[in-house]
Formats: sequence, C-alpha cells, structure tokens
Amino acid sequence: MPEDDSRGPVVFIGLKPTMTYVFQVVAQVHSGASPVVVKARGNAIAKAVDVVEVVRKRFLEGAVDVGPITIDTERLVNREGREANVSSIAIPVTPRPGATIPMPGNPPKGAGPSP
Amino acid sequence: MPEDDSRGPVVFIGLKPTMTYVFQVVAQVHSGASPVVVKARGNAIAKAVDVVEVVRKRFLEGAVDVGPITIDTERLVNREGREANVSSIAIPVTPRPGATIPMPGNPPKGAGPSP
Repeated sequence: MPEDDSRGPVVFIGLKPTMTYVFQVVAQVHSGASPVVVKARGNAIAKAVDVVEVVRKRFLEGAVDVGPITIDTERLVNREGREANVSSIAIPVTPRPGATIPMPGNPPKGAGPSP
Repeated sequence: MPEDDSRGPVVFIGLKPTMTYVFQVVAQVHSGASPVVVKARGNAIAKAVDVVEVVRKRFLEGAVDVGPITIDTERLVNREGREANVSSIAIPVTPRPGATIPMPGNPPKGAGPSP
C-alpha cells in the first residue's frame, strides 16, 4: 500500500552521530517512493542540514530532490517545567522519478559536509 | 534605485546574541522592499532559524513571507589549514506587497522562539 505523502516516513534528528541519521534517510529512500522528511528542533537543526547535505551530495547524488524546506516554532515544556519556544525545521527528501537510487557503499570523497 | 533581488541585503549570522540579528533583519526589511536573506554556516544555522522565527512571529507578523529556504555545502579552510566541508543555509525574508511593516517596539509575548 503506498504511503500518504503527508504521513510519510520521518527521521527525527537527535544526539546520535550524523552518519547514523544519514543511513536512516538512505534506507527510507530505498524502501519507497514517498518523501522522507528530516525533522529537528533547536540545536539539532544544524545537524539536520548536515544529514541532508551528506545524503544528497555523497550517497544519493542526482537521485533526490530537497525541499520545500519549512521552519516553525514549537512550544515545549522544559526540564524545569516552564514553557519555552523552540525553532524547528522540516526538510523533505524526495526520490526523483525514474532515478536509480545508488546502493549505500563508499561515497565519492570530497562532497558533502564532513560528518 | 531599487536593489537587484539577487544582490539584496544579506544578514550573516555569527556569534552575537539572537536579538542583535533580529533587529538587523527588521531594520533591513524597513529600509526597502527587496528580500533580506539570512545566511549562516555550521552551528549558526540553528540561530538563523531562531532569528527568522522571531522576526516573523513577534516583530513582523503577517508582514513578511519566508522562503524558499535553500541549503548547501561550502568548502572552507579551517584553523589548522585543512579543508573542511560545512553546511550552510539561506533564508529569504520578503516583505508582503501592501503589508504595513510594524515599527520595532514591544513584541507580543509568547510568540517566536525564546531568544
């Protein structure tokens, strides 16, 4: 059953190493045709951009499109029980129609941000 | 003379406090009709998103459009003289045609990420 684009796979970026999330995104892109949405909040936003850049420039070059990127503000309750606003980002990574998705392996050197 | 959109004002996000850049963006939006592009690299990317969220949700609510957001990889020479890849983001903030740009003052509370 094809997945609804609006409820497709999501990869949340947290405290693990960048490459952990890179492989999650590559695996999700391999598993289906729907956009994979990379999401992050707060300081993890920079890592989310790294993840998508490594995916599209080293692993899935020419095989995916990125965007439209959206940003938002979420209201969270922090550890002290107080409400705080935190920025968020959502970056869709969409397989190009007809593109051959490369299998994960040794990516070409010198492309994408250093992990 | 109207500015060329492709060479319009740019606010680079660095190590200063978030609100410093918020006021720079608000001032630039006030001074003209062209998009103001908020740019950042590496860990400053999260702060760039904070800046734009505070601008559009607290200071210039309803008066600007955000996007299309683009991400890229830049090749830099770091302090040790070695080349390194770093992710970057560019977030255009565009005044809405006909919208009244609010003057900077006390923003409504509870909107936009906490600075």
